[in-house]
Amino acid sequence: MTDSNSNHTPEDFGAFVPGQRFRIEGRAGGPLSGLTFVAKDLFDVAGHPTGGGNPDWAKTNPVPERHAWAVQTLLDAGADLIGKTITDEVSLGILGENPFYGTPVNPRAPGHVPGGSSSGSAAAVAAGLCDTALGTDTGGSVRVPASFCGLYGIRPTHGRLDLSGMMPQAPTSDTTGWFARDAETFARVSAIMLGEAIPEELPRRLLIAEDAFAFVEPDTASALRPLVERLARLIGETAEAVLAPPGLAAWYRAQSTLQPHEASRTFAEWIERTNPRFQFSVARNLMLGSQIAAGDLTHAELVRQEARGDLRRLLPQGTILCLPTTPFPAPPCGQPLTATTALRSRIICLCALGGLTGVPHVTIPGATVDGLPVGLSIIGARGSDAILVAVARALSGTN
Amino acid sequence: MTDSNSNHTPEDFGAFVPGQRFRIEGRAGGPLSGLTFVAKDLFDVAGHPTGGGNPDWAKTNPVPERHAWAVQTLLDAGADLIGKTITDEVSLGILGENPFYGTPVNPRAPGHVPGGSSSGSAAAVAAGLCDTALGTDTGGSVRVPASFCGLYGIRPTHGRLDLSGMMPQAPTSDTTGWFARDAETFARVSAIMLGEAIPEELPRRLLIAEDAFAFVEPDTASALRPLVERLARLIGETAEAVLAPPGLAAWYRAQSTLQPHEASRTFAEWIERTNPRFQFSVARNLMLGSQIAAGDLTHAELVRQEARGDLRRLLPQGTILCLPTTPFPAPPCGQPLTATTALRSRIICLCALGGLTGVPHVTIPGATVDGLPVGLSIIGARGSDAILVAVARALSGTN
Repeated sequence: MTDSNSNHTPEDFGAFVPGQRFRIEGRAGGPLSGLTFVAKDLFDVAGHPTGGGNPDWAKTNPVPERHAWAVQTLLDAGADLIGKTITDEVSLGILGENPFYGTPVNPRAPGHVPGGSSSGSAAAVAAGLCDTALGTDTGGSVRVPASFCGLYGIRPTHGRLDLSGMMPQAPTSDTTGWFARDAETFARVSAIMLGEAIPEELPRRLLIAEDAFAFVEPDTASALRPLVERLARLIGETAEAVLAPPGLAAWYRAQSTLQPHEASRTFAEWIERTNPRFQFSVARNLMLGSQIAAGDLTHAELVRQEARGDLRRLLPQGTILCLPTTPFPAPPCGQPLTATTALRSRIICLCALGGLTGVPHVTIPGATVDGLPVGLSIIGARGSDAILVAVARALSGTN
Repeated sequence: MTDSNSNHTPEDFGAFVPGQRFRIEGRAGGPLSGLTFVAKDLFDVAGHPTGGGNPDWAKTNPVPERHAWAVQTLLDAGADLIGKTITDEVSLGILGENPFYGTPVNPRAPGHVPGGSSSGSAAAVAAGLCDTALGTDTGGSVRVPASFCGLYGIRPTHGRLDLSGMMPQAPTSDTTGWFARDAETFARVSAIMLGEAIPEELPRRLLIAEDAFAFVEPDTASALRPLVERLARLIGETAEAVLAPPGLAAWYRAQSTLQPHEASRTFAEWIERTNPRFQFSVARNLMLGSQIAAGDLTHAELVRQEARGDLRRLLPQGTILCLPTTPFPAPPCGQPLTATTALRSRIICLCALGGLTGVPHVTIPGATVDGLPVGLSIIGARGSDAILVAVARALSGTN
């Protein structure tokens, strides 16, 4: 149940925070001149309130005086900022349904959720309202809307980019990511954001995560197969591998212990000070996050430590691994709480490796299930972000 | 943190639900003709949405086609209904701070909370905007705002009045109550609502709850002493007595186990269907209510059973007992969550006997602490409602 995008015109796909469609011009003659972008409402834009998808956050925090690092970086590179986009409240959501500002329309799947929490950023790019968009990814918040809206998206190596001016959620998992409709734009923006040229050379070995493909809906796995085959032809050596030795569910459990615990600490002072409004499910997650037992936290930290080692062994330089980005395409909007809670766990289960291990993660569009987009993910060793972008670009030139 | 009554003009003390100030005339020539009343937004008024203090309840439930029993009863008696008043969300609150519609002004203590959950009803009567007002009392929601706003208020014997058209919270504790500024109006309205003449004869014995007076702030106990002495002179025989043999805290614990458990069941289907917005504290209470262990529930039910027996022994016909209504006068608005949570427990501790035992409970104004009102409560055997009203009326004629 939402405000039904009542604040929006049909033309903007409900992607923008009400009143936050504006234009700030990028530096003339920059490498991204001619491109436009939007920023998720978690990024500071000087003179505009940062709301984090919750009107009480906007009301009880100062209007920023400086741009976030990511916003400034794109402006310095010449891109024009054209507005701030809707997010799940305080980035705690994976479907993109916001009861205060409405659910952005998924331009590729109307009537289905856009995915979240970077919902408005994905919707704006998919609708062609802008060329690229800033999002954040703590537990899947770039990867999931990219998959559901048929976009390129990246969750960079954790700790690589400067997060100043980005509203935190769970700092040991938080990242800044971005979206694009086409591989070339994705590569141009990535080179700027990563501060590194996108290489021509590709990895030499591809692993196919058999556990992750087995976990997803069979029709989603089938839909991704042609893309996997093209990728295998592009890379050369290919093998099946197990991504999560203790099980994806074990990784899910560790991430859904650590992340809500950190999130409840991040927002504790604000909640204490202002007793803000939340959708019930968001309040419940924050509440459960504050109740996690010390023994469960310790266990989750050890699972994380072990998962990082597992991926270091699995993914040496020159090896990448592919997996489905989401277990299914975008579900219909407006489902009951029990249903969305179950969908949410399955989605987050497949995304948990990001927050848990911090490796870079790129999602590539190109498959559909009954006309609805689903993405194929590739991951690599920490720091291999540009190589993953190179693979995405090279793959777009194949068929 | 609230919307700062931005929807309201100063003249209405922020008491009304935005857009819900109107007039429905009562039957001409009725016993209450010439009086005006308001109804807490938990009561159905035909053609007007019932919001229960939460915009998502209003949006996801049908507009009622019939008046609630209590509304119809006052209209039939000739009183004019002039609007619907703000309540804490779904009646889960005791201070009266509503983040969606604002906190009604306490006309007797500006800058301090009005008390809740029947906040707007109490504010409207205290401000002189109407003569009487309908409220509900599950855990203190008439008694507390009556005490904080300097009004007469009643929580009738549980199960006595017809609650049809009143939004439930915890059915084994829910009651319909009402407010008035003066004892005569209080008696007139009470006679209609109770369907029983207010007697002239008074009880013969007064008990003073020594545990309850010891529990409250010393300056509140002192402020109430002259009122207790007038009451003692009015009744005649007086004795000290222990109200809660196992301790007020034991009664608090039982009531705060049973009531949130029931409330979480009452709202479970709606939450499942709509994932509504709540102030964090309200979502937390509903969440905690849904997590109560079966063994704790059983224990609480036994404490309730025993408490009912204790009060039957303590309060035979002809005996009443007095206690402070609240442990202190209205606290300042806008305190942090930890502080309001602590205040709330202390207030509810003194009110727990109502929901737990179901005996009738009248609160009488007339004392102040540093200029802020506090009420004196009287309780009696089940069914002695009219006798308590008679005491309140007789006391107003003494000095």
